Amino acid sequence: MTDGDLFERDAASAALGITIVERESGHAVATMLVREDMLNGFGIMHGGLIFALADTAFAFACNDSSAVTLAAGADITFLRPVKLGQRLVAHASVRSLSGRSGIYDVTVRDETDAAVAEFRGRSRTVGPPAPPSR
Amino acid sequence: MTDGDLFERDAASAALGITIVERESGHAVATMLVREDMLNGFGIMHGGLIFALADTAFAFACNDSSAVTLAAGADITFLRPVKLGQRLVAHASVRSLSGRSGIYDVTVRDETDAAVAEFRGRSRTVGPPAPPSR
Amino acid sequence: MTDGDLFERDAASAALGITIVERESGHAVATMLVREDMLNGFGIMHGGLIFALADTAFAFACNDSSAVTLAAGADITFLRPVKLGQRLVAHASVRSLSGRSGIYDVTVRDETDAAVAEFRGRSRTVGPPAPPSR
Amino acid sequence: MTDGDLFERDAASAALGITIVERESGHAVATMLVREDMLNGFGIMHGGLIFALADTAFAFACNDSSAVTLAAGADITFLRPVKLGQRLVAHASVRSLSGRSGIYDVTVRDETDAAVAEFRGRSRTVGPPAPPSR
Repeated sequence: MTDGDLFERDAASAALGITIVERESGHAVATMLVREDMLNGFGIMHGGLIFALADTAFAFACNDSSAVTLAAGADITFLRPVKLGQRLVAHASVRSLSGRSGIYDVTVRDETDAAVAEFRGRSRTVGPPAPPSR
Repeated sequence: MTDGDLFERDAASAALGITIVERESGHAVATMLVREDMLNGFGIMHGGLIFALADTAFAFACNDSSAVTLAAGADITFLRPVKLGQRLVAHASVRSLSGRSGIYDVTVRDETDAAVAEFRGRSRTVGPPAPPSR
Repeated sequence: MTDGDLFERDAASAALGITIVERESGHAVATMLVREDMLNGFGIMHGGLIFALADTAFAFACNDSSAVTLAAGADITFLRPVKLGQRLVAHASVRSLSGRSGIYDVTVRDETDAAVAEFRGRSRTVGPPAPPSR
Repeated sequence: MTDGDLFERDAASAALGITIVERESGHAVATMLVREDMLNGFGIMHGGLIFALADTAFAFACNDSSAVTLAAGADITFLRPVKLGQRLVAHASVRSLSGRSGIYDVTVRDETDAAVAEFRGRSRTVGPPAPPSR
């Protein structure tokens, strides 16, 4: 699997308009524009979609060509409400690795550079990479 | 705000095909069908969308007509991969309340009734309800 | 390893005055009296020791004679301050199991039966039981 | 309250042999020697006491003379078992602040400089400082 393959096949991130703008081992940056169909009943961005952006950045930070690493879990704290039309940026970085487990931190910021959410992902490496889909 | 209003205005949950099938004070049940545009690069459901389903159930369990309660944060553990075509069900229940803070547990199950994710939400009541949108 | 062995060898829980009052597969109850040497600089119980009580109950709920299960991690929410002289009770129960991973919930209550903390532990079974110490 | 006061009155941290070795606004470093009475039934350090060390570092990073800030909750991931006789060091740093809420990260390392636990604390500022005790 190459870097491109994993993202090209990620239909969910594509449907949410998520773009990976940087990616290297242990680090990734993803962006997303807040659309009308991402607002909850209070008229602010649905927390689940803020999580989805962070989770995508996390997945790209912890997967390279040498193994398949999955999200075992994550914690998110929502710091500020997010409004329609904002472009969010999520920076993901590895914090600690131990055996097959890893901890990755993701900060999601809005256009004013204020942190809107802090996410911490727990990864688990489960095996060698899958063959490319065809 | 009536129960119906909050959900009718929730464009994000609607776009994800989430339906609220039960709702009473401190408890809610939401369902969602796993579509092609919800799969990640590994061909399984994107964890962010499992989170979104749980988060919606959580929001409906902690909001009633007397106040606005927001998600301050949440933790999720992913227990099993979720495949295309599954109908997921998320049960949310209040666990503890203290002042303006609350803890809600949400279990997401697949069609075999196996738990695919355990979510724990932290709520914060921030004020009286907003007037109905018009 | 028998039930008694694991507890008899637990010097840390003994030093904290923790007693296991109930124990069966997937469930345990532990109690602890709040002593002067457990208070922090604000004159209330140190959160780390509330965590330690919950963590002990969790360990006894997830270990039986068939395997060694360790805490991979945990989340705790502190709901109310705890005062000197209170007897706390922690109830731990399994919530979900999947392969070698488990989720256990622990509620810590004070003498008024109010929840003072909600703890969720993540377990990982790592191997067969160790031989009895001698 | 001065910085010194909060620590001088912290009986729990004193009983655990915890020392604050650095402290400035938003940052603190605490150390602790692993004693026999800190081991669990598996002969390794009780996770609750690793948490207690991290929680103390967190408390000193988020409290200064201008307000009282309490731990609302925390998540910890245990990365490696900790043995008798090790001197642990916990570095706590603020990550994000928003209104009365804050997120602090604490890494606990052993003498080989390996991370043994990653802790993330959620703080809540509740009011002005208490008058000095007398």
